[in-house]
Amino acid sequence: MSRQILRSDIDQMEKRYRANLINSLTGFKAINLIGTVNAQGQTNLAIFNSTVHLGANPPLMGFIQRPVSVRRDTHANILQTKHFTINHLHKGIMEQAHQSAARYDADVSEFEATGLTPYFSDTLPAPYVAESHIRIGLQFRQAIPIPLNNTILMIGEIIEILLPETLLSKDGYLDLEAAGSLTGSGLDGYHQPQKLERLSYAKPDQSISRIPFLQ
Amino acid sequence: MSRQILRSDIDQMEKRYRANLINSLTGFKAINLIGTVNAQGQTNLAIFNSTVHLGANPPLMGFIQRPVSVRRDTHANILQTKHFTINHLHKGIMEQAHQSAARYDADVSEFEATGLTPYFSDTLPAPYVAESHIRIGLQFRQAIPIPLNNTILMIGEIIEILLPETLLSKDGYLDLEAAGSLTGSGLDGYHQPQKLERLSYAKPDQSISRIPFLQ
Repeated sequence: MSRQILRSDIDQMEKRYRANLINSLTGFKAINLIGTVNAQGQTNLAIFNSTVHLGANPPLMGFIQRPVSVRRDTHANILQTKHFTINHLHKGIMEQAHQSAARYDADVSEFEATGLTPYFSDTLPAPYVAESHIRIGLQFRQAIPIPLNNTILMIGEIIEILLPETLLSKDGYLDLEAAGSLTGSGLDGYHQPQKLERLSYAKPDQSISRIPFLQ
Repeated sequence: MSRQILRSDIDQMEKRYRANLINSLTGFKAINLIGTVNAQGQTNLAIFNSTVHLGANPPLMGFIQRPVSVRRDTHANILQTKHFTINHLHKGIMEQAHQSAARYDADVSEFEATGLTPYFSDTLPAPYVAESHIRIGLQFRQAIPIPLNNTILMIGEIIEILLPETLLSKDGYLDLEAAGSLTGSGLDGYHQPQKLERLSYAKPDQSISRIPFLQ
């Protein structure tokens, strides 16, 4: 049966119920671990489900930072050391990644607390997750405030990509399924995607054709 | 074999190759149809893979609008009539949704061109997609320019949700798999997610437990 939920219904929802529902509405979303380090060398790792592609040239990615009315290590560290990493999840590190969301004391690294391994390249100071298969190193470019709810769009420019050679198609497409990358629903759902199709570039008065995932 | 790609490599990539690769890096992402209407009543439908959850209270969602250096009907219509809809894809409308990306003339509605059916509720002027299972009606709130690449974060406040009653868990979680909602990779990959786990709220010094998808 179809259900209509209006704004007045949303306002009356219990807080956790509303968070679950509204977080489900975007559909399946990217879930990634963001690695940072502060000026004293203390590492931090946090799970985010709000990473977004902003553009390919220059190569920009962003994520939504929740209000900094309480301590937010990821945000503070990026402002201090100007770099962060984005690391894909896979099934083998799903529970450790989820656990990184716990509110640890500031002097505890989520790497140690969850048992994930920091990996440092020569390109940037922020730590990667050694266990992750697809890893992106970014230089912080801009923090754009969203006054409507005090969140912040944090933007980085990609300066390094680490990935298994075999995942990369001749046309630049990355086989995320072969990497085992996961997708998320709501606040706490984890899913493994299964290929349907890659579809050709859409043009008016021309029908779509299927293209191979790996070329 | 592991591969390291540096910023100088990215800059030298052929344009389409770079677009495929950089669009793959966020991981699997939400893909949705955005429905709008202009002041003259002409409807428009466009596929986006950049919708993002901004917050539950007030209930806000956003999407990234590409530069408006060329005609962008979605953007123009939202500024004119202050509303838009976000409609989940499922396998049955995947090809029609993909086709909505074709560059039709301004006087052609993508609803007619793709064969998808506009549905109007009494709550807002923008059209929903009748064939979609999860549909969200939004009032436009703010357009935030991203000067780094001239994209725009378009933000709406949720004023209506239409969904099948059976998808809604007692705790507000929505069963997106039962809805058949898809996830996307790169610019043109479509995937059907398979459930792994819902995991309990993470706390320090407490192990994670599994929770039922539907309660």
